[in-house]
Amino acid sequence: MVKVAIIGASGYTGAEAMEIILRHSRAQLTYLTALPEECGHVAQVFGQFKGRLDMHIEPLDIDKLSSLADVVLCCLPHKVSMGFVPKLLKAGLKVIDFSADYRIKNVEIYEKFYDVKHTDTANLAKAAFGLPELFRDEIKGVDLVANPGCFPTGALLAIAPLLKEGLIETDSIIVNSVTGSSGAGKNPTIAFHFPNMNENIFAYGIGSHRHMPEMEQIASEIAGTDVNLLFQPHVGPFDRGIISTVYSKPKGNVSSESLLKLYNDFYSQEHFVQVCNSAPKVKDVTGTNYCHVFPAVAKGRIISFSAIDNLIKGASGQAIQNMNIIFGMDETLGLK
Amino acid sequence: MVKVAIIGASGYTGAEAMEIILRHSRAQLTYLTALPEECGHVAQVFGQFKGRLDMHIEPLDIDKLSSLADVVLCCLPHKVSMGFVPKLLKAGLKVIDFSADYRIKNVEIYEKFYDVKHTDTANLAKAAFGLPELFRDEIKGVDLVANPGCFPTGALLAIAPLLKEGLIETDSIIVNSVTGSSGAGKNPTIAFHFPNMNENIFAYGIGSHRHMPEMEQIASEIAGTDVNLLFQPHVGPFDRGIISTVYSKPKGNVSSESLLKLYNDFYSQEHFVQVCNSAPKVKDVTGTNYCHVFPAVAKGRIISFSAIDNLIKGASGQAIQNMNIIFGMDETLGLK
Amino acid sequence: MVKVAIIGASGYTGAEAMEIILRHSRAQLTYLTALPEECGHVAQVFGQFKGRLDMHIEPLDIDKLSSLADVVLCCLPHKVSMGFVPKLLKAGLKVIDFSADYRIKNVEIYEKFYDVKHTDTANLAKAAFGLPELFRDEIKGVDLVANPGCFPTGALLAIAPLLKEGLIETDSIIVNSVTGSSGAGKNPTIAFHFPNMNENIFAYGIGSHRHMPEMEQIASEIAGTDVNLLFQPHVGPFDRGIISTVYSKPKGNVSSESLLKLYNDFYSQEHFVQVCNSAPKVKDVTGTNYCHVFPAVAKGRIISFSAIDNLIKGASGQAIQNMNIIFGMDETLGLK
Amino acid sequence: MVKVAIIGASGYTGAEAMEIILRHSRAQLTYLTALPEECGHVAQVFGQFKGRLDMHIEPLDIDKLSSLADVVLCCLPHKVSMGFVPKLLKAGLKVIDFSADYRIKNVEIYEKFYDVKHTDTANLAKAAFGLPELFRDEIKGVDLVANPGCFPTGALLAIAPLLKEGLIETDSIIVNSVTGSSGAGKNPTIAFHFPNMNENIFAYGIGSHRHMPEMEQIASEIAGTDVNLLFQPHVGPFDRGIISTVYSKPKGNVSSESLLKLYNDFYSQEHFVQVCNSAPKVKDVTGTNYCHVFPAVAKGRIISFSAIDNLIKGASGQAIQNMNIIFGMDETLGLK
Repeated sequence: MVKVAIIGASGYTGAEAMEIILRHSRAQLTYLTALPEECGHVAQVFGQFKGRLDMHIEPLDIDKLSSLADVVLCCLPHKVSMGFVPKLLKAGLKVIDFSADYRIKNVEIYEKFYDVKHTDTANLAKAAFGLPELFRDEIKGVDLVANPGCFPTGALLAIAPLLKEGLIETDSIIVNSVTGSSGAGKNPTIAFHFPNMNENIFAYGIGSHRHMPEMEQIASEIAGTDVNLLFQPHVGPFDRGIISTVYSKPKGNVSSESLLKLYNDFYSQEHFVQVCNSAPKVKDVTGTNYCHVFPAVAKGRIISFSAIDNLIKGASGQAIQNMNIIFGMDETLGLK
Repeated sequence: MVKVAIIGASGYTGAEAMEIILRHSRAQLTYLTALPEECGHVAQVFGQFKGRLDMHIEPLDIDKLSSLADVVLCCLPHKVSMGFVPKLLKAGLKVIDFSADYRIKNVEIYEKFYDVKHTDTANLAKAAFGLPELFRDEIKGVDLVANPGCFPTGALLAIAPLLKEGLIETDSIIVNSVTGSSGAGKNPTIAFHFPNMNENIFAYGIGSHRHMPEMEQIASEIAGTDVNLLFQPHVGPFDRGIISTVYSKPKGNVSSESLLKLYNDFYSQEHFVQVCNSAPKVKDVTGTNYCHVFPAVAKGRIISFSAIDNLIKGASGQAIQNMNIIFGMDETLGLK
Repeated sequence: MVKVAIIGASGYTGAEAMEIILRHSRAQLTYLTALPEECGHVAQVFGQFKGRLDMHIEPLDIDKLSSLADVVLCCLPHKVSMGFVPKLLKAGLKVIDFSADYRIKNVEIYEKFYDVKHTDTANLAKAAFGLPELFRDEIKGVDLVANPGCFPTGALLAIAPLLKEGLIETDSIIVNSVTGSSGAGKNPTIAFHFPNMNENIFAYGIGSHRHMPEMEQIASEIAGTDVNLLFQPHVGPFDRGIISTVYSKPKGNVSSESLLKLYNDFYSQEHFVQVCNSAPKVKDVTGTNYCHVFPAVAKGRIISFSAIDNLIKGASGQAIQNMNIIFGMDETLGLK
Repeated sequence: MVKVAIIGASGYTGAEAMEIILRHSRAQLTYLTALPEECGHVAQVFGQFKGRLDMHIEPLDIDKLSSLADVVLCCLPHKVSMGFVPKLLKAGLKVIDFSADYRIKNVEIYEKFYDVKHTDTANLAKAAFGLPELFRDEIKGVDLVANPGCFPTGALLAIAPLLKEGLIETDSIIVNSVTGSSGAGKNPTIAFHFPNMNENIFAYGIGSHRHMPEMEQIASEIAGTDVNLLFQPHVGPFDRGIISTVYSKPKGNVSSESLLKLYNDFYSQEHFVQVCNSAPKVKDVTGTNYCHVFPAVAKGRIISFSAIDNLIKGASGQAIQNMNIIFGMDETLGLK
């Protein structure tokens, strides 16, 4: 049994990771930590675990953690994570990091978008980008996986076949996404107060969302050339899921049929990516680690659709998929 | 034109009152106030007024208020209100008070449930309870109206005919209500954070909700005898509206048909109370000042249903209905 | 491996049963049937199974079924079920029946509420009522389990300790419930059209809901004396879950503390019933087979709250809990 | 008083038109019609009119209509409308037509997208496109107004200043919209069944939505040159509103500041178009006839956002705005 610790277990991604490990036949939760004011019995912090998980969330003690766990799901916020990860690695633990701190290889871009000095560039260089469908081989041997952002996961899976095959103009990509409100995290705010968010939908992060440089870096890596894209997120009145609608310009002639074949071939060995025959629906993937994709041609452009659960394929599910890979287990264990 | 000031204009009931006055042919907004940190142009505080209402919400200045307004809609919280109302009345203003401070005539009960000493018992004695369908005559002459609570409005209209006619055991009444989330007010909390409240429903205030003694007092007044009732509120994943399901035991034989006739007779002259032929739906009354009621007999009990919009008939709509009455205007002006 | 067939696999309870069996370590789906017009690949009927379950839903062939399965989850509607169950039993299959046809032992009451002649009274007499927390011993040996209704499951678990201990007046019980909209089934209707049901809540089935006699029968059995109760359902704007608020009159003095102790003792060995310290929230149980309960005393009455997922503990989860029992497996397999 | 008839009064746009006329100080409802099976007292067809509107919806009788009304709001479906409009005009009535039949001037394009022969090209040539902010002068004198589609209204107001000023590449426009579910109309379908649509969001009409040629025609007219655009609609889990996010490529250098100034100037005299300082929220416009717009520059592209209520500015509100114009009344009467 792989022994799993979760740092930052009191948030939505922590809770979702616990749900998954509870179903996992070869992994078990051994240590849960959070900020002191968010500690307590799991069932007090999350009512849905009452009777299902008899553990306490405790303040972090790295010695205790390293004695109890083989791997850490590190659900800390950006900037905070890189303060802990070096210690965790030094203690001999494998780390799946949920923050952006180890995703963006270009330190300058990281520092510009996150407005902070990067303090662990050594490990940054060694981290694998944890999108298994695209980087499975890189993930296999590493100690540190940078678990991708939720929007990049959906957007990149939507267009990876186009980028890989060099079919599109690399400066023509527009990613339009709508996320459910759990993406905003667990802390109450005015915008996400139920009477404000319910029956509402709006754009945010115009031209400045931090997932944009992450998408560009990985898209460029897939394409083997610089990709310059525009990402515009929106948030809507539902709990979970992201729908991404990605517009791009084909370099030459393509048809909806040829794209569908390309996508089916590209993802034929992938368990968690399903190519649909029509636009995917968020509700078909919520609660699962699946990404549904669908490409189409319209008015001389390609529109690539994808749907994921932002907390699962966009966070905790993908983290455990990565964990399964680095421990050499069946990649689907614990996941549905 | 009646000149209207709103104190506490930055909350949901304040906004709803503005919406109504904007439609009112014989009243106009002249002064809006709130706590200093919640002041600013109306369109900044509430995006829906952009281009529709060019006023600022300002910190309260009672001299300015009394020079600008004939009537005050006082949307202050319980306990705070009675600190201001005496000054407003002394300045010669009519006051419609949204708090509980002038609703509960029995000072002991008020002080027990609101855990504070009542500091304005003189005006308490003179205030009318602003439920026009039951107390129109008392409202007509007064300077101070205690605008009823949202739950009492729905519950009392559901059972007033039964109480008035002495048809039910006065210790048998159980009021089960479900409110939309706007009832919780505008301040973000963990319980009303969208990802927590969405797809959720739960009970609260068990045996202790402050609207229970208010219901009992008014029910007793209607019945002409002591009424002892149990009130259990719940909150559900929708913005607006309250559905109340009121159970009681008939003293003698009653039929659904006879009750329907009784209700139709009782409310025949009432514009804003409509007797339905089946259980009312919240969505039929949201956005309006109407209360839909329906009585039925089942298994030897009477079930009386009502539906209102908690922010309109349960707050700001009823306040303006009261304002219309005390200024001798058509009771329906501004209301729909 | 227990081989499981589902009859009526194209509805919401069928889909939920598939989700559970997919997680079950000792059971597998072997045969899925539905009406001819609802057949097809599982992923076409339910998008969420794309890539997860490669089976077809076929028209029912009882010979094929009996050769492929050990047990049948029979998700047919009331009245239809009793036309098939005798054949299934005769073919040597175990049957978990989701309809009401084998729940109500009193044929007269069944025939009155369901307006049809009962055509299989022989098996009716032998069927166990599948609420394991109350009737586990009866379930163990049987071939036919009548899986309880969703409302009765929640209501009965909320008050079973009170009935068993004889603490309440048996003619004083009022069950007020609110269900999510999936309870209405998969067929589109005007009432459940999204723009009508969203932001709405209303009562239905006044004095006539078919779960009322079911509740009364089982409550009487638990109490050992005739119980006469009133059940009033409502439906609200959410997918899943039922919250039940059950009012009753205690025979003597009780306190909230003594009730809490009673409930904790009564359910101490039960995995799927959790006694809470405050009113349960539907969202804490959705997606699980748990029932959260909480008793309190207020104004001389007992209020017992419960929350379940109507499609899981109220249907398919409980069915598989029953299946686990009759096959002598760990009762929690496949369930969360 | 302007006497108003509504044909097709039993749908959502009919109901919304009634709400508005009820508030209108210079117009009154005189005749309401629908298909025979959808007739009856208004309060039976729409519960929200109980006590508010004492009229019957009747089968259409054109003689009766012409004797009772000055103007007809014709809420018939596409293709059906052009069968009635010539008779209405011949009877001397003004007509505001909600269908697409008089919107698309190019008959070939109409016939291709609507798959029907146009049978009233004479009146098509005379109809004004009823988007007052862009075509007020054309609307003033006409007898027949083609009320715009909901998506075109939002999209065109979002980019009209750019088109008018010739600032963008006319083949670079991508309109990405999300509509609330009321856009689907009142008839229940599987996709809009509450348990399917709730917590869901998805794209539809890929490359084929009928509002695309309508947008192109009007955009071309505004720009004075051929515009070729891509429109991709989505539907989300809320009742009302459309958010449009329109991407385009500027011809030269533009800044967010210069665009904001342009938009403010362009719409400075427009009551119902408000230029925001950040991305508009659907909830700020629902229930109103307003369109909130906001332009920004990001990554070398312009993103123009707009939000409208699909049933008001996108249908019935705009129809009454048009009615007000053709009768020479204050354009805002009845509207909020």
